[in-house]
This record gives sequence, structure tokens and C-alpha cells, in this order.
Amino acid sequence: MAGQSITDLPTPALTVDLEKVKQNARVMLEKFQKLGVQLRPHMKTHKTLECADIMTAGSRRCIVVSTLAEAVFYADRGFEDILYAYPLPFDKVERCAQLSERLTLFQVLLDNSAALEELRKRPLKGGKDWHVWLKLDCDNKRAGVPHSDPAALHLALAISQTEGVELTGVYAHCGNTYSCSGVEQIKAVAAATTTSTLQFMEKLKANGIHGVKSSIGSTPSCSHPVPDMALLSEVHPGNYIFYDVQQSLIGSCQLEDVAVRVLTRVIGHYPHRNQLLVDCGWTALSLDGGGRLPTGYALIEGHPDLKLLSMTQEHGRIEPVSGKLDYAKYPLGSLLSLIPYHACATAAMHPVYFVHSEGMVVDMWTPTRGW
Amino acid sequence: MAGQSITDLPTPALTVDLEKVKQNARVMLEKFQKLGVQLRPHMKTHKTLECADIMTAGSRRCIVVSTLAEAVFYADRGFEDILYAYPLPFDKVERCAQLSERLTLFQVLLDNSAALEELRKRPLKGGKDWHVWLKLDCDNKRAGVPHSDPAALHLALAISQTEGVELTGVYAHCGNTYSCSGVEQIKAVAAATTTSTLQFMEKLKANGIHGVKSSIGSTPSCSHPVPDMALLSEVHPGNYIFYDVQQSLIGSCQLEDVAVRVLTRVIGHYPHRNQLLVDCGWTALSLDGGGRLPTGYALIEGHPDLKLLSMTQEHGRIEPVSGKLDYAKYPLGSLLSLIPYHACATAAMHPVYFVHSEGMVVDMWTPTRGW
Repeated sequence: MAGQSITDLPTPALTVDLEKVKQNARVMLEKFQKLGVQLRPHMKTHKTLECADIMTAGSRRCIVVSTLAEAVFYADRGFEDILYAYPLPFDKVERCAQLSERLTLFQVLLDNSAALEELRKRPLKGGKDWHVWLKLDCDNKRAGVPHSDPAALHLALAISQTEGVELTGVYAHCGNTYSCSGVEQIKAVAAATTTSTLQFMEKLKANGIHGVKSSIGSTPSCSHPVPDMALLSEVHPGNYIFYDVQQSLIGSCQLEDVAVRVLTRVIGHYPHRNQLLVDCGWTALSLDGGGRLPTGYALIEGHPDLKLLSMTQEHGRIEPVSGKLDYAKYPLGSLLSLIPYHACATAAMHPVYFVHSEGMVVDMWTPTRGW
Repeated sequence: MAGQSITDLPTPALTVDLEKVKQNARVMLEKFQKLGVQLRPHMKTHKTLECADIMTAGSRRCIVVSTLAEAVFYADRGFEDILYAYPLPFDKVERCAQLSERLTLFQVLLDNSAALEELRKRPLKGGKDWHVWLKLDCDNKRAGVPHSDPAALHLALAISQTEGVELTGVYAHCGNTYSCSGVEQIKAVAAATTTSTLQFMEKLKANGIHGVKSSIGSTPSCSHPVPDMALLSEVHPGNYIFYDVQQSLIGSCQLEDVAVRVLTRVIGHYPHRNQLLVDCGWTALSLDGGGRLPTGYALIEGHPDLKLLSMTQEHGRIEPVSGKLDYAKYPLGSLLSLIPYHACATAAMHPVYFVHSEGMVVDMWTPTRGW
């Protein structure tokens, strides 16, 4: 379909604006080059080869993944220095061992001593050590040992003292930036996470553990880094490559930075209930956001007066935010462009992304799926 | 992975209980054989070859699909008599024409005269007629011409009078059964939809239009058919092949009829906040149901005291419905089994289904995706 206009694509279709993706990648790379901090981009939002090349500026080095399927996908395509930043799942230790033995640098993450014991029980061949990041919870309240809990230091010491295992880094995800509104709040969370992480690094040094990397990340915090983040080794944002409505509401980006759309067509007019139907259901957009935007499940580009009220598997119901729908503006078969609430969730629904430059399809990207 | 226990599968994993699927298929087939009504099973829930064979009792005939990708998938595998029961999307008319020309019987659906005009403009080759179902809205308020609107009869007449087009059937989806609670409410909606549809069929006959099929369907109504449904030509349920928590709450089935699970493992213990983490996020379960069950986003089999509180992309947070979590009951690495709220939405997240018989993997089914 390369060479055709995106307006001719069969719908629903996920489109990716290549110039915006390149710009989002460039801005983030430059931001952390200036700070002297290594950017380790997260692949979870797109899971494609082509976008990984853009995010790593072609180096195919230094990435983070959310599933082992992603790790294998990138390893098979020549990527190195891959961090599987997920609490080590015990059923995947053997596959992780094989990746560690095969790659120059494959890294795992853990937040409990049982996981460490799993690694100890499976020493790597070829004289290699497991490269382990300790997951620290800096008040995000998902995975990780609470940063102020003495257990965190104990676990770090245990990792560094276990034969065949190396404490490579300390990793915190400031996902609590997602409840922020505006740059000042984002910066406050970024600063708090940075401080907690750096204080923990000091504790490591005070206990004789040196040469350990530190990394924090989330798209909001990395879009608005605070000066202290220059003291970290790495950052690991991911969503910034696409951005989305949620990120614009948090304050991470402007709406014009959002690189993805779901194109959909009008398939029904129902004046008796002041609605129209489009061919975008939750299989094409996801239910993320819960429809809580004033415009429902998405923004409808160029039509702030419309609301995506509800979706079933393949249907979306649209009605005006207020007043009567002017059907002449939305003929049957005409195209609407949805700006997703959460790009990660929307991209996850698509077996292929249609990549365009100024509205002309230039590529099709195929993501990896599964675990 | 055939021959291994499902308890050894890497997680998250969608498992399908083959005996339950076969039983759900058999019960539905027998129910409508007794009523003398043709069962046209819907493929949208599973989208696999193997499950379609079970639902059609091996005939590979008489199915309904929600996307053109499904239609092509089944046509490529020898299926015939395929109804693409979706308001004709104008961008897909040419592909529909090609399927109509290639298959003995491919059928489309519409609810407006603009769609009819699209068909008229693309006459089929080889002396074939378009086979068209008119979508009637019997108070479901999604697609369809309202059954009592004179426009419905006008459109039916227009279809039957258009050269190269044949009015094959009248189709209503009683999705409004999804707001029912209990068998009596389901039967009331089923009866109302049947009555509206049959009254419309009488109007067609009174206007000289004969030989037109009628079909209604939804898993709730077809799980509890009312006697008048014997007067219909066909029914078209789909979800019944898997069923789910939602269907059990509506009253369509018992919880023990639900054939699918998402297997997940415990990956984190967090006593300081009385939670544990599992390796099932919304990429493995979907966000359908919005977490509004007393047990959150799913039922956790055998653990009615646990709640799947929230999910991010690859993480699920579980906490007790009340009281303190007994972590000894859920060791790190141990398996939990989630009964999905909405099987269609959960299955849509998985690139492969692990099919088992009494807990031993016997097959892997690969669904089609996209549009």
C-alpha cells in the first residue's frame, strides 16, 4: 500500500506519522545527550523493528522491553544490550538464561530474594554472570522494593554477593507521574523519584557496592527532566515515541506531537437517536481511558463537537457533545481520524501500522505480540 | 507444547477447555435442531479454523463473521455460505464483490440506501446477484433501520427491486439482552425482538416480497430461546462457544460452562500495601468490564476472596476483597486462573490459544486478526 494516500486505506487503520516519530525520538535523544545521561528507550509502545531503529538512532543497542517475546524479537534482529525490565517470572528463567548466554549483554530485573535464588540455581554457561537490575519502588506502588525499606539494601547486598550474579543497576519507574496535571507536578514527581534513587545509590556506596547504574523513567518525567536527573546513569521512557491524548493532558507533550491516529469511516446515520456509527470498535482503539474524556474514548480530530460515546467489538457510537448532529458534515463512507487516549493500548490492537509522511503511506510496520 | 500440562505453560496464557467448547457447541446445535431453526454461528469470539469446525459440526457451512478479514480467512479454508453481518463499509465493496464472485454464497448486510447504491454501481460478474440482508434495529440501538420505521420497508422494497441485488434476509441483533439480569428478562427481550422481526416479515409478504429469511441472535437470547423463535429461519449467536463471567451474570449460562481462562503467575509480594502482582496486564485480559465486578476485572478461580484491582500493560494488582492477604497461599511463581469478564475481548488479545482436555494441552489455535 506504499505510495497511496492514508485517506484510501481500508479502515479501521492505525497510522503513524513518520516525521513526528522522528522528531519525538530526536528531541528525547538530544535532551539526554545534553544532560549526559544514557537514553535506554522502551519498546513496549510499538514493538517494531523500524521504530526501534529510530529510537536508538540506528545503533540497535541499549533498549528496554516489557516482554520476553520482545527481547527475543530484538535479539533475533541484531539488537544488543537488552534490559528485560520486568519482575523476573520464574517460568521464564531458562529462556532468560539462553538469551544471556547468546547475547553480549542481556539484563534481567528482580525485586525479591526468591527470584535471586532462581538465578543462583541456573548458573550461566561460558563463565558468564547474570546481569541483574534491582527494581526499586519510589512511591509508584506497582513492582519494586520500597526505596526506604531496609529490605532494598539487603537485597542489593545479596545480589552483589551471590556467585554468578552481578548487580548491574537500580531501576525505578515513576508511573505515578500519570496522575499529574501539568509540568510542575510532573517535575515534582521526577525530582522525588530521582532523589530517592540517588539516596539509595549513596547507601550502596556506603556499603561498599560501587559501579552500579541507576535508571528512572516514564514519558512524563523524561519529557520534563529536572536537573538532578543528570546524576543518573540512564533513563528509560517509551510512550514518547507516539505520545497520546493522555500524555497531552498530563502535560508531557502538546497535542500536535501525537504521532498516531486510528482512521475510521462512517458506516451508519441514526437521526432518530442523534448518533452515527463508525467502523472503529474496541478491537481497533482499546477501551483504555474508560470513555471519561469530555469527548469520550478519544479525540476526533478537527471535530471537538463530537463524542465517541461507546464501542462494541467493531462498532463505535458517535454523538454531538451537545445539540443536533449535522449529518451533511459526515456522509456515509467519510473518514474520521481518532487521536487515541493511550497509544500503547491502541497500538496493541493492531497487527500492522501504516506509516506515512505527509499523508502518503511510506511503510508498514509489523509489531511482535505475545509473551 | 501439546502433551504438557497447562500448569507448565508460560504465562500469561489463554486456555480453552475443549470439552466445554464441544459441549457448548452441541447444546446450541441441538437446541435449534429441535426448534427447526438453522444455527448460523458467529465467528467473532474466537476467529479460529478449529473452533469454526466445532461450531459448524464439521460442515464448514453457514457462518457469520464480524470482519472481512474473518470472511477471507474462512473462505480460504473452504468455508461457504458466509454472512458478513456488518453495515456494508464502502471502502470494502470491491473486496466483497470479489468474495461474492468467488464463493457459491457470500452475503452482505446493509441498513441504508447509499450502501445499496454502492452495490448497484458494482454489478457482480458471472451473472451473479449480490445477496443482501437488511439490518433491522429491534431496539438494540446500534446498527439497523428501526423496525417500526416506514423506512425499513421502503429499503427492503428498494433492495428487492434493484437489478443485480437480491434481498436474502432480515437480520436483527438483540444486543440489548446484555443489560438483562436473569432468564425471564432475557426471554422478554428475545420475545420482543422475535415479534418485531416476524411482524416485519409479515409486512414484506403483504408487499409481495416472499422467500426472505429472518435471523435474530445474541448469546443470551439463543441460550434461552422462546417458542416463537421457531418461526425464524435462523439464529446467529457467537459468544456461547466460550461464555464468560458477563454471560453468567446475565443468566445465559452457569459459571461452570465458561470454557476460557487466562493463566497468570504471581510475580510480586507487597505486604506493606496488602497486594500481590501477577503477570497479567490488559494485554492479556483486556479492560472490558471496567473492573466493576466485586472481584474487579475478572473472577479468580477458587479464590473468591481476591480482587483483580487494576492492570497496566503487563502487570495486574491483586488484593483481598477484605482483610489481610495470606501470602503463604500465593507463593511467588504460583499459578492463578482468571475467568474473563468478556471472552470476546480477552481472546482478542491473544496471538494463540492453548487448547486442553482435562488440563493437558492437546492443540494450539491461531486466530485471524485485523480487518
